[in-house]
Amino acid sequence: MDMLYDCWLAYGKDDSMKWTEKYLSRLCVLCSGRVISSAVKELEAAFGRLTGNIPERISQPLSEGCFILRINDSLGAGGYDISVSDESITVMGGDENGVLYGVFRFLILASGGYPPESLSITEKPCFPLRMIDQWDNADGTVERGYSGASIFFEKGRPVSDMKRLTDYARLLSSVGINAICINNVNVHRTETFFITEGLLPDIAKIAGIFADYGIKLYLSVNFAAPMEIDGLSTADPLDERVKSRWKCTADNIYRHIPEFGGFLVKADSENRPGPHTYGRDHAEGANMLAAALKPFGGNVIWRCFVYNCHVDWRDRTTDRAKAAYDNFKPLDGKFADNVYLQIKNGPMDFQIREAVSPLFGAMPDTNCLCEFQITQEYTGQQIDLCYLVPMWKECLDFDTYHGGEGSLVSRNILGAAGVSNVGSDRCWTGDPLAGANLYGYGRLVFDPALSAEKIAMEWVRAAITADEETAEVICKMLVSSRDIYESYTSPLGVGWMVTPHYHYGVDVDGYEYSPWGTYHYSDRNGMGADRTKATGTGYTAQYAPHNEEMYENVSACPEELLLFFHHLPYTYMLSSGKTLIQHIYDSHFEGAEKAEELLMRWRSLKERVPEEYYREAELRFEKQIENSRQWRDVINTYYYRKSGIDDIRGRKIFR
Amino acid sequence: MDMLYDCWLAYGKDDSMKWTEKYLSRLCVLCSGRVISSAVKELEAAFGRLTGNIPERISQPLSEGCFILRINDSLGAGGYDISVSDESITVMGGDENGVLYGVFRFLILASGGYPPESLSITEKPCFPLRMIDQWDNADGTVERGYSGASIFFEKGRPVSDMKRLTDYARLLSSVGINAICINNVNVHRTETFFITEGLLPDIAKIAGIFADYGIKLYLSVNFAAPMEIDGLSTADPLDERVKSRWKCTADNIYRHIPEFGGFLVKADSENRPGPHTYGRDHAEGANMLAAALKPFGGNVIWRCFVYNCHVDWRDRTTDRAKAAYDNFKPLDGKFADNVYLQIKNGPMDFQIREAVSPLFGAMPDTNCLCEFQITQEYTGQQIDLCYLVPMWKECLDFDTYHGGEGSLVSRNILGAAGVSNVGSDRCWTGDPLAGANLYGYGRLVFDPALSAEKIAMEWVRAAITADEETAEVICKMLVSSRDIYESYTSPLGVGWMVTPHYHYGVDVDGYEYSPWGTYHYSDRNGMGADRTKATGTGYTAQYAPHNEEMYENVSACPEELLLFFHHLPYTYMLSSGKTLIQHIYDSHFEGAEKAEELLMRWRSLKERVPEEYYREAELRFEKQIENSRQWRDVINTYYYRKSGIDDIRGRKIFR
Repeated sequence: MDMLYDCWLAYGKDDSMKWTEKYLSRLCVLCSGRVISSAVKELEAAFGRLTGNIPERISQPLSEGCFILRINDSLGAGGYDISVSDESITVMGGDENGVLYGVFRFLILASGGYPPESLSITEKPCFPLRMIDQWDNADGTVERGYSGASIFFEKGRPVSDMKRLTDYARLLSSVGINAICINNVNVHRTETFFITEGLLPDIAKIAGIFADYGIKLYLSVNFAAPMEIDGLSTADPLDERVKSRWKCTADNIYRHIPEFGGFLVKADSENRPGPHTYGRDHAEGANMLAAALKPFGGNVIWRCFVYNCHVDWRDRTTDRAKAAYDNFKPLDGKFADNVYLQIKNGPMDFQIREAVSPLFGAMPDTNCLCEFQITQEYTGQQIDLCYLVPMWKECLDFDTYHGGEGSLVSRNILGAAGVSNVGSDRCWTGDPLAGANLYGYGRLVFDPALSAEKIAMEWVRAAITADEETAEVICKMLVSSRDIYESYTSPLGVGWMVTPHYHYGVDVDGYEYSPWGTYHYSDRNGMGADRTKATGTGYTAQYAPHNEEMYENVSACPEELLLFFHHLPYTYMLSSGKTLIQHIYDSHFEGAEKAEELLMRWRSLKERVPEEYYREAELRFEKQIENSRQWRDVINTYYYRKSGIDDIRGRKIFR
Repeated sequence: MDMLYDCWLAYGKDDSMKWTEKYLSRLCVLCSGRVISSAVKELEAAFGRLTGNIPERISQPLSEGCFILRINDSLGAGGYDISVSDESITVMGGDENGVLYGVFRFLILASGGYPPESLSITEKPCFPLRMIDQWDNADGTVERGYSGASIFFEKGRPVSDMKRLTDYARLLSSVGINAICINNVNVHRTETFFITEGLLPDIAKIAGIFADYGIKLYLSVNFAAPMEIDGLSTADPLDERVKSRWKCTADNIYRHIPEFGGFLVKADSENRPGPHTYGRDHAEGANMLAAALKPFGGNVIWRCFVYNCHVDWRDRTTDRAKAAYDNFKPLDGKFADNVYLQIKNGPMDFQIREAVSPLFGAMPDTNCLCEFQITQEYTGQQIDLCYLVPMWKECLDFDTYHGGEGSLVSRNILGAAGVSNVGSDRCWTGDPLAGANLYGYGRLVFDPALSAEKIAMEWVRAAITADEETAEVICKMLVSSRDIYESYTSPLGVGWMVTPHYHYGVDVDGYEYSPWGTYHYSDRNGMGADRTKATGTGYTAQYAPHNEEMYENVSACPEELLLFFHHLPYTYMLSSGKTLIQHIYDSHFEGAEKAEELLMRWRSLKERVPEEYYREAELRFEKQIENSRQWRDVINTYYYRKSGIDDIRGRKIFR
């Protein structure tokens, strides 16, 4: 038993699964396939761990306690039904993946101490595509990784030891993930060659592992690959030689990896090559690749994170938030049916608070995915606690009003992609409590109707302790953590204010005069980005009228986004009856206090959580307190120096 | 002929040396030694280059044109006398080094087109120790290097090709340098072992090269070496085992390198180990090492760059500027006679404008050196033009008033150390025009009475062109460059405002909330560090009374240092009749304009300077313009946003 490593698959960590032994001792498998084999293996391993024995395989259901696996098409792809009776437990899946998901679901809930009567469940995934994006590089580093080295690559090549990857595939499929892109969207020199003969056999081995768990492997590709690999003089997507090279590449990939998912592409963004170089648009670029993959059933995932990263900060009319919509909205309907646009949840870049991207709902004739960042680049870097499911849920539940009320983001997408927070650390995620984000991502995109609390509770009970009282405390810590992090960092949706490049810790003006398009425009009178149509950049006009009005009008604008949409004086009165400056002071004092409370609460659990969990998390809570104090004092001093306005409660603001 | 590589030793770049051929064709060498051999080689090479022949060696002076070398003790160590008559040119040196210096001096001036009648010169060095510090690491990187890789090390070892090092020794000795420390003061793991048997033979080869040119080799050592190398449990300088280890180490080094100079030590600074760890003071630490070197005539150079780099920015009473004085002044008289304290020119860290360190003159019973930074860490990084000799001269000419008027810094030190700006770039210094700083450093510390203009002129004529009109233009560019750089960067001595860690480019608040002790305290009313005794940190009290009063009193304080010593409102009226804020606007607009003028002036010389010089420098002037505009606009906008005060001349300040 290695609880940190096992994460939420720590079967038998306590007595809560005792009752399942009578069912698990006999397996009746009424279906077959490579994924079914994985489901069986998982049950065997669980039972083995509980009792030391291997379950008996039987060919017909018995009346005296057995575990039955079967397919029932009517449940749909990935859907499953678990039913628990006195005699047997039956997991039916709409397909092989459904069976596997049902098995994992049963084991996780049982291991979390949920009682037998609560385990009869029918579920099916909301979206067909539920993806994980690794930002792993061939040299073994992970871009924005805070959990050690890559588990996929080392020294320029794919790893050869498959044990860790098999366990990763187990973790992912246990929460319904069915696609993974294993290399960074920033495709450097070495990774450009992943699609060539020299490396495909190794990639294929990895693909096989994930295929065993119903997960399709994708690769990020370099749009300029025909030049870099084949020495063509162009990568123009309308050039016949270029098309032909990509067709050959696809053909070759599928010879090695019949179950290959497709390509993920970051093009014409942050200095990456793309179709714009050749005067072509994103649709022409994506469709060319899509045509190459089409015969084999592959997809192109095309990122919409396209913006000018050489903005002149002096120009207050240019607005990076407008970029994705400006670039892609005009292309609606022009993408092939195996192209999916991957749209970040917000229009900027994974800040702790942003408006929801106006692209959602605005491209009815295009396949869209929502991109979330599980790795905590801007949200605490797996040091500060930040359970992100509430934020993601806000996005999925956001009503775009395109075509009328009720047009939620979740109804306008076909799936999601989450940037992984996993690395070679023993606990996978740097902070073991960040496991909740990986688990939660999978669960939420399987069923966006789930509450963030319910997901957190499931995770805590399976991963840490089935003791309800303890789990309740940890769950509350998780659920409050995003608000706490937000309260001591940048105020009211304005974002950024982080240490440049590193993105942890405060630097209020760190990006203020940079070319990155991320400004708060604080002066001695006020702050915030004016994105209104009336007096600002006009970004609000990218929303459907209902939302446009809401954001345009300062009194209707949700207060947590006030400074994302408006430039306001420090004396602006919030609905709470506080001025903006007082809100800044209050939230920062309170945020730092609450960060201290997190540590106190964690310490109160010392005897009740596994020791390694305790120690790893405690270390981080201590660092979080330091970080929150620095944020508090820098933000408060910065705004005191700018505004000259005292805290009405007379607390210590350094001059 | 490779003018970039040859630097100021580009003999025969034009016709100006023609007249010397009659003298150079016959050499009469009336002295001998390894350094004399180098002088002869240099004359042979020069004559070879001019005529294609080797000069004839004669044993007695002739009346028909010959070049005579001899020793004349009365000229003192390093002193020389050059006399040019119709028959002969005689270079007499006070010692071998003096002869070598005289030869170089003759060749450089002749090559620069100075006429024969101006070449009869007698000079002697002002200081006995004239040192260069390399910040080169074993892995081939150079800390704060802007000129390519290390020429001393690669892949963890000293280089084996001695050609480049020989030419470096020529360049250094040609301006009177007589000591060099070849590795970074931050001694990392690999460099710690430079003093061990495995690496000493390679170091000895390098030492031999420099010894040929009268330059003693020093090594930076790790104070914790007895622990890291020998596995002792302590590096306590009073521990007998520790003393014994260092004695053995010294003994062994001198076996390999009889002419070894000694150790350079950065201790108890920026997280480096030192005597404080063991409750010992700097004198106890330095004297222990000095005792080990003493029998061999070696020295310990001990850096005074000791300060707390974990300051709390919230605490406005702690002042990094006070640190060196606080740490070392109480130890005056306690250091062994072969210990030299190396004191940075200013109390902070090589900013474009600082007060002169209050330690100078305050330690009459201690050997002191002044440390200058030739590499342009904070002063343009060999992109922006910044000729530093005027700044260094200000420091050497500064009257400390210790013991009465006229107690100049130059009279309170025994030498200087300059942090090298040299790397593997073809022109040695990144920007070829930065060669003026290396040349100028050597010349100035040989004779601080020289004017910055004279030194610049010598360098331009020898390195670029003997054409007086062209040289005049370049010389003026050089001499004005420090003021230009200062005018568009941080105002009135307040310093910093640079991109953290990188130290090029503007980030006004980059260090404002950091632990580095470098703050400008700008708020909506004013800015500057109050270092007065009356209301500030009390730093002014570290100066002799005359200077203390000058700095303490805002109206007596030199205006270029106003914000180094005082926190003042933006509306403070300067002697020019301008407010402080208006001065900031004016100097930044003018600074950026003058940066443009530098490029224009350089372009006007296109046909008159060697092509490679032209191209390399032009590229940099273009970048300097960009940099100066960014500084201008960020500083102006930052202070406009803070102060709300408009430019009275209505120029464009971005909001």
